[in-house]
Amino acid sequence: MNLSEMSKEEIAPLLEIEKQKFTAFKSKGLKLNMSRGIHSVEQLEISMPIMDIFHSSAEMKSEDGTDCRNYGNLTGIAEAKRLFGELLSVCEDEIIIGGNSSLALMYDSVSRAMTHGIMGSTPWRLLPEVKFLCPVPGYDRHFGICETFGIKMINIPMSETGPDMDMVEKLVSSDETIKGIWCVPLYSNPDGIVYSDETVKRFANLSPAASDFRIFWDNAYCVHHLTEKENKILNLLEEAKKAGKEDMVFEFASTSKITFPGAGVSVFAASKANISYVESILKYQIISYDKLNQLRHVRYFKNLDGLKEQMVKHREIIAPKFNLVVNTLSEQLDGICRFVKPEGGYFVSVFVPDGCASKVVSLCKEGGVTLTGAGATYPYGKDPHDSNIRIAPTFPPLAELSEALELFCIAVKIASYEKAL
Amino acid sequence: MNLSEMSKEEIAPLLEIEKQKFTAFKSKGLKLNMSRGIHSVEQLEISMPIMDIFHSSAEMKSEDGTDCRNYGNLTGIAEAKRLFGELLSVCEDEIIIGGNSSLALMYDSVSRAMTHGIMGSTPWRLLPEVKFLCPVPGYDRHFGICETFGIKMINIPMSETGPDMDMVEKLVSSDETIKGIWCVPLYSNPDGIVYSDETVKRFANLSPAASDFRIFWDNAYCVHHLTEKENKILNLLEEAKKAGKEDMVFEFASTSKITFPGAGVSVFAASKANISYVESILKYQIISYDKLNQLRHVRYFKNLDGLKEQMVKHREIIAPKFNLVVNTLSEQLDGICRFVKPEGGYFVSVFVPDGCASKVVSLCKEGGVTLTGAGATYPYGKDPHDSNIRIAPTFPPLAELSEALELFCIAVKIASYEKAL
Repeated sequence: MNLSEMSKEEIAPLLEIEKQKFTAFKSKGLKLNMSRGIHSVEQLEISMPIMDIFHSSAEMKSEDGTDCRNYGNLTGIAEAKRLFGELLSVCEDEIIIGGNSSLALMYDSVSRAMTHGIMGSTPWRLLPEVKFLCPVPGYDRHFGICETFGIKMINIPMSETGPDMDMVEKLVSSDETIKGIWCVPLYSNPDGIVYSDETVKRFANLSPAASDFRIFWDNAYCVHHLTEKENKILNLLEEAKKAGKEDMVFEFASTSKITFPGAGVSVFAASKANISYVESILKYQIISYDKLNQLRHVRYFKNLDGLKEQMVKHREIIAPKFNLVVNTLSEQLDGICRFVKPEGGYFVSVFVPDGCASKVVSLCKEGGVTLTGAGATYPYGKDPHDSNIRIAPTFPPLAELSEALELFCIAVKIASYEKAL
Repeated sequence: MNLSEMSKEEIAPLLEIEKQKFTAFKSKGLKLNMSRGIHSVEQLEISMPIMDIFHSSAEMKSEDGTDCRNYGNLTGIAEAKRLFGELLSVCEDEIIIGGNSSLALMYDSVSRAMTHGIMGSTPWRLLPEVKFLCPVPGYDRHFGICETFGIKMINIPMSETGPDMDMVEKLVSSDETIKGIWCVPLYSNPDGIVYSDETVKRFANLSPAASDFRIFWDNAYCVHHLTEKENKILNLLEEAKKAGKEDMVFEFASTSKITFPGAGVSVFAASKANISYVESILKYQIISYDKLNQLRHVRYFKNLDGLKEQMVKHREIIAPKFNLVVNTLSEQLDGICRFVKPEGGYFVSVFVPDGCASKVVSLCKEGGVTLTGAGATYPYGKDPHDSNIRIAPTFPPLAELSEALELFCIAVKIASYEKAL
């Protein structure tokens, strides 16, 4: 039965039951973490052969003879550009291979725009105001970059097909202080939404008032399917080229959720003109990223099929966890919460009744389970409805996840019942 | 005989001889590179065991149980902080372990000051002018960072004991737009100068007009001795503490010239207050640097003695190259050039007669040997005397180095003789 249709007399005794369950649960003294999307130990084991790639110095040369132990190759080795270029369907001269962090590539892109502008534009630091559009709920670390640079964030509602494009088009074309938008187009963080072809095409055809407006296209989950159905999105850079607007695209990806979260390889893709411009400043920042790790990844995967096979191994480990989350929530919280079963990505996004998210998170904390902070999925940490909670089920083993979900459901019920009374 | 004491009639026939030698040399069709301080293949071989550190997942945990394959530990793992803290004689809470590039740590430090200021100061981007002092000759990549951020550079002459401290003290204390100074205090790049105790003490006791003035102390060659004599400098952070001025110090180092230039570990050391401040912004840029590479380095070296033993192996390979340079220049260019035999570091800094450096570099290029560009050791690439040339002898094998030096000497003689005529 839907909570909103229940009378206070019906709810009150249910609340008492959940409170008793909560007290019992607390006494277990658990310590579990569902706050961040990180690999479980089992997933880390998949990639262990990558530690055994180099046995001789001859093996440490890239295909063009570059000794990857030494300096050089600012934008990455050719075979890495080819492999990750194939992954993102971009050419080798449209890509830079970075270090272990795509977040750093994103932060650096914004930082560079602040200090240097983009391709000849006025450095953003000289402008009285800079704004970014932020589809919500979204990724807290994207919002963090804006916050630390004092970039004003504007919430954009998400639908099942992606951000509200009417609103995006209107704002971007009319306000030249809007310099960017954060997107996770395939399996959005946290909702798992797949941007429709129409959405991508509308992005590719935006007519921004600002010449240095960029779409920050964080393709973090480009091959991170949770079912056998491999959702695909249109290639934004290619679509933008058709409209002669390819300079508008900054695309990012990484192997953080493919090999090792802490020791992977990151990727930046953009038009040739953007790549040349970035390179012209990047050369002052670094001589070269870690090419040994680039080569290690290429040799390990061998090719795109190898990379995809790796993702099947991850899926076999994490899909049961997502199923457990979805099944538990369906059974326990039907009529109280709203959520969608994701077909990829790393999260389950749950909307609890308005005004309850903070309470749920704090009850879970009290019971020994750390969740992503309420509000984290919104700019400035402010969820206007105090409703969205991001569950990250990959790290805990199934048995622990089951316990954590038990607590989560109790917490949601307590918060929702109390709110309804 | 000194060139300045020779008559034109004496010089002319000598020039003809060198020109003939040059023509003969060119016909060899050589392609050698003495432009950058990079490891020779032999040196790279020293570190090969570092590729064979991890054989099981258990070995990939740091001492506090952190799985180094996963996210976490923004400022580095404890054992890396301890080892590199010992190397620089700083505490574990005065250090951040970075990625493979200390240049990136330096660039990021300046970039952060531009966008955020330092410890509450006005962001440099909001100031009408920012200046750095640049002891010359110096490291081109330091100057490049200033140039790309539009920071005005002021040349400071170097003496045998370090930068002209009278000038540094006077400028720093009187001009609040001066925000920094670049120093390579031990075996300076390119001169190989060792800062005297008095110089370090005077640095530690500077009274800058700007509260956010920082000494960028690039301790790149802290254990890079070329002889058995291990020169030491005073610990700047410790000296500054005595004066209550420890917040003035930003220290940098890396293993780029210890293990692999392209895949080492970098280090940032500073006061606790600075570290906390940097961390508060760094957390928006990156989740964690590559901890596997940090652990790899610690396990490989075992301790500071292990690291020093590694440096002896490097010395055995590169000292003969430096000796060859110094001996050749002494024999061939006595009375024409000025240079000092370095006791450490990566370069031999040669002062050819005024107005001759560009010509020497271009003749060498014509003959097949790439040198660091003339002027590169000065801000804006402008050597006011067109005199300094940085020789980087580590990369070529001895036989090739010998040939390159032959050409270099011919080129210096041609340029000098022509100038004198």
